Amino acid sequence: MTENDRVGMPPGPLDAPGDSGRQDRILLRMQVVLPDGKRLDLPHNATARDAAAQIGPRLAQDAVAARVNGILHDLLTPLPDGAEIGIITKKQLADVSEVWRHTLAHVMSQAVGEFYAAKGFDPQAVKRGVGPAIENGFYQDFDLPEPLTEADLPEIEKRMQGIIDANLDLSRHEVGREEALRVFGYDPYKVELIQELPEGTPVTFYRQADYVDLCRGPHLPRTGLLPRAFKLTSTSGAYWRGSEKNPMLQRVYGVAFASQAELDEYLRLLEEAKKRDHRRIGKDLELFFTSDVIGPGLPVWLPNGAAIRRELERFIVDLEVQQGYQHVYTPAMAKSELYKISGHWDHYQEDMFPVMKIDQEELVLRPMNCPHHIQVYSHKPHSYRELPIKIAELGTMYRFEQSGQLTGLSRVRSMTLNDAHIFCREDQVQAEFKKVVELIQGVYEVLGFGQYLYRLSLRDPNDKEKYYPDDSMWESAEGQLRDALNDMGLNYYESPGDAAFYGPKLDVQVRSALGKDETISTVQLDFLLPQRFELEYVNEEGGRSRPIMIHRGVISTMERMTAFLIENTAGDFPLWLAPRQVIVVPIADRHVEYAREIEVTLRALGLRAETDDGSERMNAKIRNAELAKIPVMLIVGDQEQEARAVSVRERGKGERKGVPLADISSELETRYRQRQP
Amino acid sequence: MTENDRVGMPPGPLDAPGDSGRQDRILLRMQVVLPDGKRLDLPHNATARDAAAQIGPRLAQDAVAARVNGILHDLLTPLPDGAEIGIITKKQLADVSEVWRHTLAHVMSQAVGEFYAAKGFDPQAVKRGVGPAIENGFYQDFDLPEPLTEADLPEIEKRMQGIIDANLDLSRHEVGREEALRVFGYDPYKVELIQELPEGTPVTFYRQADYVDLCRGPHLPRTGLLPRAFKLTSTSGAYWRGSEKNPMLQRVYGVAFASQAELDEYLRLLEEAKKRDHRRIGKDLELFFTSDVIGPGLPVWLPNGAAIRRELERFIVDLEVQQGYQHVYTPAMAKSELYKISGHWDHYQEDMFPVMKIDQEELVLRPMNCPHHIQVYSHKPHSYRELPIKIAELGTMYRFEQSGQLTGLSRVRSMTLNDAHIFCREDQVQAEFKKVVELIQGVYEVLGFGQYLYRLSLRDPNDKEKYYPDDSMWESAEGQLRDALNDMGLNYYESPGDAAFYGPKLDVQVRSALGKDETISTVQLDFLLPQRFELEYVNEEGGRSRPIMIHRGVISTMERMTAFLIENTAGDFPLWLAPRQVIVVPIADRHVEYAREIEVTLRALGLRAETDDGSERMNAKIRNAELAKIPVMLIVGDQEQEARAVSVRERGKGERKGVPLADISSELETRYRQRQP
Repeated sequence: MTENDRVGMPPGPLDAPGDSGRQDRILLRMQVVLPDGKRLDLPHNATARDAAAQIGPRLAQDAVAARVNGILHDLLTPLPDGAEIGIITKKQLADVSEVWRHTLAHVMSQAVGEFYAAKGFDPQAVKRGVGPAIENGFYQDFDLPEPLTEADLPEIEKRMQGIIDANLDLSRHEVGREEALRVFGYDPYKVELIQELPEGTPVTFYRQADYVDLCRGPHLPRTGLLPRAFKLTSTSGAYWRGSEKNPMLQRVYGVAFASQAELDEYLRLLEEAKKRDHRRIGKDLELFFTSDVIGPGLPVWLPNGAAIRRELERFIVDLEVQQGYQHVYTPAMAKSELYKISGHWDHYQEDMFPVMKIDQEELVLRPMNCPHHIQVYSHKPHSYRELPIKIAELGTMYRFEQSGQLTGLSRVRSMTLNDAHIFCREDQVQAEFKKVVELIQGVYEVLGFGQYLYRLSLRDPNDKEKYYPDDSMWESAEGQLRDALNDMGLNYYESPGDAAFYGPKLDVQVRSALGKDETISTVQLDFLLPQRFELEYVNEEGGRSRPIMIHRGVISTMERMTAFLIENTAGDFPLWLAPRQVIVVPIADRHVEYAREIEVTLRALGLRAETDDGSERMNAKIRNAELAKIPVMLIVGDQEQEARAVSVRERGKGERKGVPLADISSELETRYRQRQP
Repeated sequence: MTENDRVGMPPGPLDAPGDSGRQDRILLRMQVVLPDGKRLDLPHNATARDAAAQIGPRLAQDAVAARVNGILHDLLTPLPDGAEIGIITKKQLADVSEVWRHTLAHVMSQAVGEFYAAKGFDPQAVKRGVGPAIENGFYQDFDLPEPLTEADLPEIEKRMQGIIDANLDLSRHEVGREEALRVFGYDPYKVELIQELPEGTPVTFYRQADYVDLCRGPHLPRTGLLPRAFKLTSTSGAYWRGSEKNPMLQRVYGVAFASQAELDEYLRLLEEAKKRDHRRIGKDLELFFTSDVIGPGLPVWLPNGAAIRRELERFIVDLEVQQGYQHVYTPAMAKSELYKISGHWDHYQEDMFPVMKIDQEELVLRPMNCPHHIQVYSHKPHSYRELPIKIAELGTMYRFEQSGQLTGLSRVRSMTLNDAHIFCREDQVQAEFKKVVELIQGVYEVLGFGQYLYRLSLRDPNDKEKYYPDDSMWESAEGQLRDALNDMGLNYYESPGDAAFYGPKLDVQVRSALGKDETISTVQLDFLLPQRFELEYVNEEGGRSRPIMIHRGVISTMERMTAFLIENTAGDFPLWLAPRQVIVVPIADRHVEYAREIEVTLRALGLRAETDDGSERMNAKIRNAELAKIPVMLIVGDQEQEARAVSVRERGKGERKGVPLADISSELETRYRQRQP
């Protein structure tokens, strides 16, 4: 073992070997059960490391953690008598990432201590907040004698590698509060945590070499077992315990994987995600911006972004109208009364904007469109023959989110949803549901979404609180959706407990170019709102029946869909969606007039065309057009002008020379109108 | 004379001849000047009637009123010494409509008194509010012992004709307050009015026969001069002095013209206006409705109305984009700060919705789009080369109007404006102004607006309060607009005092089918907002210059334009705007399948087509389609099905038989896309 053999490190505040505390209990015995059912006789308070050592030296060497009664433990924690245990070895390291990511946080914390000690600071000048494992890595919060810069991170990483090289043993300690306060007395954060523990609870901490931290574990037994595929990525400010009233600490983030290949892939995706960040591309391509004086979460769509949105809106509206949806425009506000009837007032108010009171009137911005579409349905009586009635809208809604939550186009306060509500008879639910799924499939094809998952979200039948209480309704509705999906031969997975309060739903999750699955479309059955609003139709017998309502969104809000498309295409939009579709590049000044003529011709066809009549050289113009992600360049020089033709340069398609102007105009118009890629 | 000779009428409270009060002053003399310059010697306090009588008995017989020092007087009011007077005769009756409409109000008031007297009520049981001449007629408010019904109006009219037949003299009286209170003591409304007159002011009233009313005139000298072309049109409730706190009186409206032909034409237009009322057609054709639970002034556009709006929106957006406007989407709210900078907060707040306060944030719905478009302009620096920059939007705005003011689509609280702001250099103002006028002309041609007026609204240079104080700016700006209009060879009229605070403007007023002129388009120069927001561009010398802003709207708000179009077309929209464009009518059940095929074909081309597969007979179906204002009917029977053709029936165009399906599809698509009538 290599404890305390590191050069230049002063002894830690607690200078005892890790397992010395248990020697006085060595006379008592206990048993544990191994996976093959064998029982193992061990001293009382033995650890999984002791168990592994008793099974064999090879296992002791390879062990990294254990499952104790099914729960992940480290090797250092005393085992309860009679526990079923399984030793986890180096080969399974990838399965226990939360353990070694946590240990890496301690190693980083130790390395930061060394870094400041090497600068001459007292070791107790470094104080520490929390340091957990997180998805893909870990972090640790520090109160430092001087701030760490991003430039310091490589040195910290180097020291971490050194600590791994040193293969330090970790030890686990339980002490009383007095002793704990003695050890951590210099660190106000630790003192605060210790003092909050209930009286009499033992305080746990872990130690490697002279580095010791208050911690509940679990951890690897020695640093030499740690994967070396980690990287410190960034630092940021973080309030102690997340509250603005507390001091600001410095948080250092790391990412860590079981293999270098995984780390590399992750960093590549991270880099890619940065490049594709819709806020960054939104700025570079002048798609949208947020104005301080207008307010957060209220993005302004610049002409380029507005062109994308307009195309999306027309695409979905035209398709829906053709398929029998009745598009409406309804006001984005109503008397608060409306939302009292719908239930939003009681259940959704914290997401709503405040009421506007004038005289005796109380008006409020709508958080959802459903109550308005219900007004459209109920403004006149309906017969069973008219059903299904499909009311659709590009419905603008307002939701109040804290300004800290808002970002770009993806988290906003004002949004316009591709919304529709289908009012139908019970015997029409399945057919209508299928039609919506087919509509979604058709839309995804045009948008180029190749990979997507169907999630059928059902209620948790045991949860009586969370769901509208009508067992037979739920069984029938869930059965109908399941049957429809099976009929259509679709792959889907069921997700019990994810239904809405008012009924089961289908969510369609699209996999982005970054490998993230985002829920884009949704189809939700609703038995509740028709009841709250007492909706009716005259049935075949002349009596009154209640319609069923299907809420559905195909392309989500214009804001989210645009953010998703930006990230998915990295700004390389297909021709029909490209904000700037065609640029005509005259080679010399004498070609500008012809170039302008082409521009005018294309604009008259509805294409977004422009001419680059700047003074730059042709190659610079081409590079600019590429950076601006304009999919089609038409280059015109003497030959082209002579022949009334163009040279066509398209992204990823090479060049076509001498294409007659009439041909390229009609080709581009057709591709645009038919939304071909 | 015929005073007091009417049967059954008790003597009035004031029983003296009209001019008796002046007899004691008969010894004094005065002079007046006639139009030909001659002087006329008259007794002191003589009236124009006296002057006419002195000129000749024929003139005395024909006189109806007079101009005294250029101002319209009646014949009954004493003339000032030295006045220039001109006698107005029966031939010019049409020019003094305010006089005889006012006298008709008295005649109606007298007739109503007779009506209740005939029913046995005490004459003093009828109390009276005001009774002025108004545009096209007159009204009188009453506090009646029992309400008048519309069915009573013909009898009142008959009694009015009787009063005209009787050719009663009118007399004018001036008395002191005491005397006036004695005469009108029974009528609390008159008492209130009398008591409000300043101490010492003589109280004037007019009398015919026993009917007497507090009144300042002017009036005809006798009822026999009144035109008989009048009609009592309606009654309504009206609060005394317009305040809800006062008692509700009953108002009786009449219309009156100099000739029966004019009255007939007016009543015809009134009837036509009722038929064309956009609220009525909006209901009949299911274009929109207003929901009590959503709230007043927040119309819901039903699918049919939404189709019209969608067509209008796409029409104007496409045209503007093609002409270099940059369409954006900006949020319909902002921090109140934004409107403080723009000045709306200080000058427009009573039309704004109340602020929504959450935590430290203050957000408010926008009353106008300009401040947002300015944010788009100023979000990055601009060079003189980039100007003009034309930011356009279908901008939704919110204005708070009292619910009593709201009506249909024409007075609403939420509206979407075809808005744009042109940011340009001073040397570009004229060219940009012309382009906007050309755009307006092009749009009107497509919308079928044949008659319109250009009004150039200028400041009143004497009014220093109402206009932005910069004389040279105003002179230059007004000159530029005038020059541009002259250059374009347009007829326009100037309207001093109608400019906006911030600059001159051009308003375009379209004459509707009802002959009303409505301001639809506007082009406004603005020097103020660029200053308030400190807008800049880098000029040719590399310095900073301030752009000029042009606010312009071409088709107004979607709400107003749709209301206007509904009234203008009476619901007979041209093909491209028609909410329901094509209906396929199968003659028998065996033709339904073919009819549906046609419907699907047309829908795939984007046309709004439907099939009438109901059980009614063909003639009933055709009638229904006509009532529903569907412009194109395609009728299919055996012959058509056989030949894969249709019979085409179009509104106002007769029938075309045996048109091949392919031909009619492509014809309709072309007409639709090209927005042909």
